[in-house]
Formats: sequence, C-alpha cells, structure tokens
Amino acid sequence: MSRRIQPRTLKGFRDFLPETMMPREQIMETARRVYRRYGFSPIDTPVLEYLEILTGKGSEETDRQMYRFQDHGGREVGMRFDLTVPLARFAAQHIHTLGTPFKRYHIAPVWRGESPQAGRFREFVQCDFDTIGTESVVADIETALVIHELLLEIGIANFKIKINNRQVLSGLLQKLELSDKTVPVLRSLDKLDKIGRDAVCTEMQAVAEISAEQANQVLKLAEVQGSTAQILTSIEELVRGNETGELGIERLRQITQALEHSGVPSERYQLDVAVARGLDYYTGVIFETMLGDLPSIGSICSGGRYDNLADLYTKQHLPGIGASLGLDRLLAAMETLKMIQPVRTPAPVLIAYFDKERLNDYLLLAKLIRSAGIGVELFPDPKKLAAQLKYADSRGFQVAIIAGSRELDAGLVQVKDLANKTSQEIAWRESPEDLLTALRDLTGIRAVT
Amino acid sequence: MSRRIQPRTLKGFRDFLPETMMPREQIMETARRVYRRYGFSPIDTPVLEYLEILTGKGSEETDRQMYRFQDHGGREVGMRFDLTVPLARFAAQHIHTLGTPFKRYHIAPVWRGESPQAGRFREFVQCDFDTIGTESVVADIETALVIHELLLEIGIANFKIKINNRQVLSGLLQKLELSDKTVPVLRSLDKLDKIGRDAVCTEMQAVAEISAEQANQVLKLAEVQGSTAQILTSIEELVRGNETGELGIERLRQITQALEHSGVPSERYQLDVAVARGLDYYTGVIFETMLGDLPSIGSICSGGRYDNLADLYTKQHLPGIGASLGLDRLLAAMETLKMIQPVRTPAPVLIAYFDKERLNDYLLLAKLIRSAGIGVELFPDPKKLAAQLKYADSRGFQVAIIAGSRELDAGLVQVKDLANKTSQEIAWRESPEDLLTALRDLTGIRAVT
Repeated sequence: MSRRIQPRTLKGFRDFLPETMMPREQIMETARRVYRRYGFSPIDTPVLEYLEILTGKGSEETDRQMYRFQDHGGREVGMRFDLTVPLARFAAQHIHTLGTPFKRYHIAPVWRGESPQAGRFREFVQCDFDTIGTESVVADIETALVIHELLLEIGIANFKIKINNRQVLSGLLQKLELSDKTVPVLRSLDKLDKIGRDAVCTEMQAVAEISAEQANQVLKLAEVQGSTAQILTSIEELVRGNETGELGIERLRQITQALEHSGVPSERYQLDVAVARGLDYYTGVIFETMLGDLPSIGSICSGGRYDNLADLYTKQHLPGIGASLGLDRLLAAMETLKMIQPVRTPAPVLIAYFDKERLNDYLLLAKLIRSAGIGVELFPDPKKLAAQLKYADSRGFQVAIIAGSRELDAGLVQVKDLANKTSQEIAWRESPEDLLTALRDLTGIRAVT
Repeated sequence: MSRRIQPRTLKGFRDFLPETMMPREQIMETARRVYRRYGFSPIDTPVLEYLEILTGKGSEETDRQMYRFQDHGGREVGMRFDLTVPLARFAAQHIHTLGTPFKRYHIAPVWRGESPQAGRFREFVQCDFDTIGTESVVADIETALVIHELLLEIGIANFKIKINNRQVLSGLLQKLELSDKTVPVLRSLDKLDKIGRDAVCTEMQAVAEISAEQANQVLKLAEVQGSTAQILTSIEELVRGNETGELGIERLRQITQALEHSGVPSERYQLDVAVARGLDYYTGVIFETMLGDLPSIGSICSGGRYDNLADLYTKQHLPGIGASLGLDRLLAAMETLKMIQPVRTPAPVLIAYFDKERLNDYLLLAKLIRSAGIGVELFPDPKKLAAQLKYADSRGFQVAIIAGSRELDAGLVQVKDLANKTSQEIAWRESPEDLLTALRDLTGIRAVT
C-alpha cells in the first residue's frame, strides 16, 4: 500500500462491538415484542427528508444541530433529528390509507450535531410508540401499561412511572386568569428545586406580574405530595370549578384506577404534579420513568398526550399519545448497575476443531445442536486445543465440545462446562437427546430460538 | 396554520407502512436468528464516516453516488454506501481487541444517490455476515450452510446456491500465461450469453491479443456443465498442473462434499463456473443464490472469499469470507410470488370496546390474552360495533372478541373468527384456559412470543 488511511470514527459517533451490540439488540427486540403485543405496528421512514419538513419543527437547538446538505439534485435535505417529526409527516401523508386509530412503533437512529460530552452522542437510537387519532383514555392507560411491561421484560423491576396531566396546571392558571402568563410562571416554577419556595414566589410576582396569592396558589399545586388518593383530593380542591382542570383530574383518576385494576403494583407508579416534560408540546397526560436504583440518570422512558400531531402538514386533526424508550440512556444505566454480562458471542457452544480429517463429524454435531435451537460455533482451524479453549473463554462461550478421532469413532464427545471447569463424556451418537439435554442444562436454553 | 408544508418523501426514498414493514422486520429477525445460531455476533457502525474512509473503496460509481457534505466542524463526511467498507475500517481499528476468527453480522441501511428507477432505491438495507481472520474451508462451508438455512427459515424452498471459485479461472489463466490479460479476457467472456461463442472467441483474440487456442481453452472452462462430479472432472482436466487451479478445485470438492454430508439436498446447490461476481474483489469461493420461481430477479444472496479485507487501513492480514442477503430484492420477489400476506397489524386479536362502563373488564381480558403471548389490541373508543368490526377487517385481525355488560356479568365473551364469520361463546371467567385454547386454535400461535 502506498498510503494507509487511519481507521477512526467521527467525534460523537460510536462503533458497537459485539459485547455492546448484543444487549442493544436484545432491548430493541424486547421493545418490538412488547409493542406488537399491544397492537403497535412497525413503520420506517427515510433518514433523509426535505429540509423544509424538518426545520422549525423541533427547537432552535435541533435546527442548529441538524445535519443538512444539498443532494445530487440540488435539493436541500436534512437527516432526521427525532422520530416524531417524521411521524407527523408520515401521518399527514398516509393517514387516509392507514385509518385511525393508528398505532405505530419506530425504532431507528437519529442524528444531532451536539457538542460531544459524556453520555451525549451525535447518533443515537430512539424506540418510539404512539397511538394516533384518538383522545380516548384507553390509549393513555395502554401507554403506561406498555412502559411497565417493557421495563419488566428488559429485566428492570425497581422503577417508577411518574404521571401528571398538563390540564391540571392549565386549569389552575385559567382559574387564576393567568393563562397568558404561562411561560414566565413556568420558567420561575422550574427553579423551585434550585432556589426554593420563597425566591420563586418573589420572582413570579416580579417577572410574571402576578399577585402574591396567585403565586401562592401555583406553588401550592407544585408542592402537592402524598398517596394517589391524597394528591387527587388536593389538586381537586385547587382547580375546583375549572372544567379543564377537572377533566384533567378525572383522567388521572381513570388512569391510576386502571393501573391498579390491571395489577400494576402501586410502588411502580406515582402521580407527580412536578413532572412538566415539554410543556409547550404536550397537552394532556405526561409520563416519565425513573430508575429506583439510579434516579440521577433521569427519565428513561418519557412521553405524553398531544393535541395535534401533524397540523404543519395537514388540516386533519390528529390527536395522539406516545412515549419513547431512551435506549442509550437505559443501557448506560444498566452498565452502571452491572446488569450487563460481558459476553461477545451469541452462541453458547463452541465445538473445538480437533482432528483435521473429521470435519464432517464436527459439521454433523453442529447441525444436531443447532436443530435444537442452541447456537453453536465450529472453530474454523485445527489449532492446538489450548488456543481454542482460550478463544472460548475470551469470547464468553459457556460450553466447549471436544472430540478427537478416538471419541468420534466411539460416538462420544467431551462436554466441558467452561465456567465450572467440569467435563462429562456423552454418547451422542447413541443418544443425541442426552447431548441436547446436557447442553440445555448448561446453557439454560429451553426452547427453539 | 399560516402555511402548510406538503408532506412528501425525497425521490428514491420510501416510507414503509405496516403491511410492508412487518415482513421486512420478520426477515431481518430471521436473519439475526440464523446468523446468531452459527456464532455470528452483531455489530453496528456510524452512518457517517470520514470521507477519506469511504472514497475510492467501492467503484467510481459508488464514489459519484455517495451522499457527502461538510459537518458542523468543517469535516468532510459521507454516508456509507455499503457495509463492507465500514467493516474493513472497523476490523482494522478493533481487531486487536476482537481477536480472530471474528464472525460478525450487520443489518443496516446504506445510501446511494442512484437514478431512481423501478426496483432501485437511494436507501436500502443490507444483511451482511462475514468470517474474518481465517482461510479455513470451514468458513466457506458455513457460509453456504447459513445461506441455505436462512432461505428455508424465510419460507423459500425452491432456490439454488451457485458456487464457483475464482482460483479456477485464475489457475487456467496462469497456466495459459494470460494472467496479465485477465481484465480484457473477462470483459469479453461476460458477453457470452449475448453475442455467442464465436463472437467472443474472435473478440478475445483481437482485444486481448491471445491465440485461438488460448481463447478456446478459456471458453471451454466457461462452458463446463453437468453434475457436481462431472464439473469437477472437466475443470480438473483444464487446469491440471497449475497449483492455484488445483487448490481451487480441491476446495470446491470439500465444500460440495460437506454440503452433501450435511443433508443439503443436491437440487439446492450447483457448481457453476460462469458465476463471476465482482471478480476484482473476490479471490476464492463465490456464491450466488437464484430463486427457482423467479430467476430473472437475479441473485438474492451473494458473497465470496477475499484475500485481504482491510489493507487500506492496517498492515494486519485479514482474509475472510462473507455474504449479503439483498432484503429489498428478496421482498420484491416474494411480493411478485404472492408470498406476502396483506396484514396491517402484528396482533391477531381485537377486543371490541362495547360498553363504556366496563373498561376495566376489557383491560383484564386483554391482559389475560397477552400473558399467553397472543397479541391483542383493545379498540380505544366505544364506537358502534359495525365500525369496530370494519376496522378489524381492514387491519387484518384474525379474531374479534365481543362482550357487552350482559356477557361480562355472566363471565362470557363472543369469540368471532373474522375469516370464516363464525362465532363461539366462551365462559372465560370460569375457564380462562378455554379462551386461550380457542385463540391459539384460531390464530395458530402456540408458544409465548
């Protein structure tokens, strides 16, 4: 070679090696399985969209961070920065074909040219699911049920889904005749944790030009705590007489009752009036999901109800509700919590290639094991056994199968448990089922995968 | 809204609606399952790479078609146009960590700004698997076994894997002392089907400046046909005395013997010396896979052995072999062959929302059915039953579950087979298993999904 090119990736972009890609795929597959079980269908949209579809639909920040360029035909195009804007475009374009309610999931990468920093990447995967075209509380309830089932199936039991309804605060502000001051009121309220009640109260009066009593009422709502029943009673008192607020509370009541009725343990959900995710976008119920063992990492599954998904592209009214699993954040959390095994092979069994002349025997053995749904790799070269076992260890195989010509002639194999360093001899030709039973025991694989 | 934006996709790009996305996902999942079963691990690489990584690595055509631009940091970047160049970069960068043999699969979209025409898209998915770091024939054999198993599990039985070895032609050209004339000889040979033997023979002599006897020998090889044994005998005669050629033939013999020994029916593979896929890139065995019912669509799974994957990025010698399933071409074929069901929901069962007051009963029913691994959608609004059944039909649900307050009070449901328009009443509260058995019968779902 005259000149070698340095192999490297762009800043903020990642290669996924097998040991990180395997848990990623596993979680994405779990998400697909759970979403489908609730009737959500997969869709996909192009990575590139006309720039005018994408600009001005997120925030100023997403506009600035968007990867954009002119394509070969001189068209201005951009790479999607989320899956919601493409969904809005998609729904506007196809809803007459799709019909409503339309339940879709979309698991795909998105791109943002953020300043790379710890935990921030320029390419990351979103796992969204949404129900479009209905205002029914059934869709709200199902969203919470999906989040709950999804985390359980991923293997996380200690989490809490925080539930709020944007209508409660809206209702209170309406009642206090502060609707036109929503933005400054919220901006102050956001500082509650940082600067404390008194400072927020003062700031609200100064900046939003509201009375001490009005500020006090808003703060009272923000500070409501207690059991589900207590919270519902407290906020009911605050918004009483305002229709929006009362409807919001009624919906929170229906959702929490349905969760209880569906057997979701009470420690896994919580009304929390402080949850204010994307208040300019969501219009109804809002969800955030916190890990009990690592709350500091933030919400790993968030979403909510919106009034109109696609009004930038169509006059058809499309209300909906959805949520998104933050795959990268969840995996970072699971890594911190040591929930991820350092395995580098999807197959639990390695067949050592021992006797060069007996390849066909090894191939038959491999075929037998695979036919039982157990993954198996045949080492490709008749290297020294020590080298092959070292390879098996470094890759994280659970079992090695070893047989030389003597064993093969006798229809035997050595089955070596690599974790416990124990071996057993099995007469596989006489009783293939004995070998499969031993492998099922050692690998924990029961069914065909 | 002041101005609506027309919802549309870029030329050559596609939205995938549920009925097209579901079979796509199914095939990708089958590929993952089969690849894993043979010990291939998943990896992923960034969509964007430094431009210098990508340019000059494919053909002039891929260079011209590449989507490229300057990122926010002024770096020249490009969107990958295949998964092989990123694999080469990835292997060069990580092989010291990964070790060899390294078996990976990568299922991901790639982009080429081709002129859009029937069946050509600017964004399409590749499903690659490769074994790197070994020259063993075991990897060649496994590649063929994976292709065979993959197509069977996708549901295709009538196909043929065509197998050739680049070394056979190389050997013959060496023997005829024509190695330096490989390119013009092949260019002429490519026209065999179009212009016939005599014209090719004349052209070879004129353009490549070779003798009539040399041209005759090359054509003899290209025309070899018959059974596996016959072909091996014929090409053996032609290349006898040349080591490269003889090694190539020995390898073809090992592969075909192993396939036979592994129980691959003889009608599913075929030696074919005319298969010349990417002769400038592959150096050993080459595979193409033709559909018996639609050969005109071309090879749906192709690959081969290469000498050195990553020499542009590293001095480490990395031979390997791999193949790629052409997802878009395969799906186009399956659609033509009417192998794809027009289903728009991943859940087979719809629960009609009949009595507004009984939401919690419907939720419990849904929970029961899902717990058996059967997907179920609860219609979100208590609309007229006729509208809900129309929705069920249009989506392709198999079963509707219908219960009003009278039935619910009695612990009963109507289970309606939507294809046959038959109904049965089941006492689900008394015997949940009766309901699940009926649903398993009607949907064909046996195990937990």
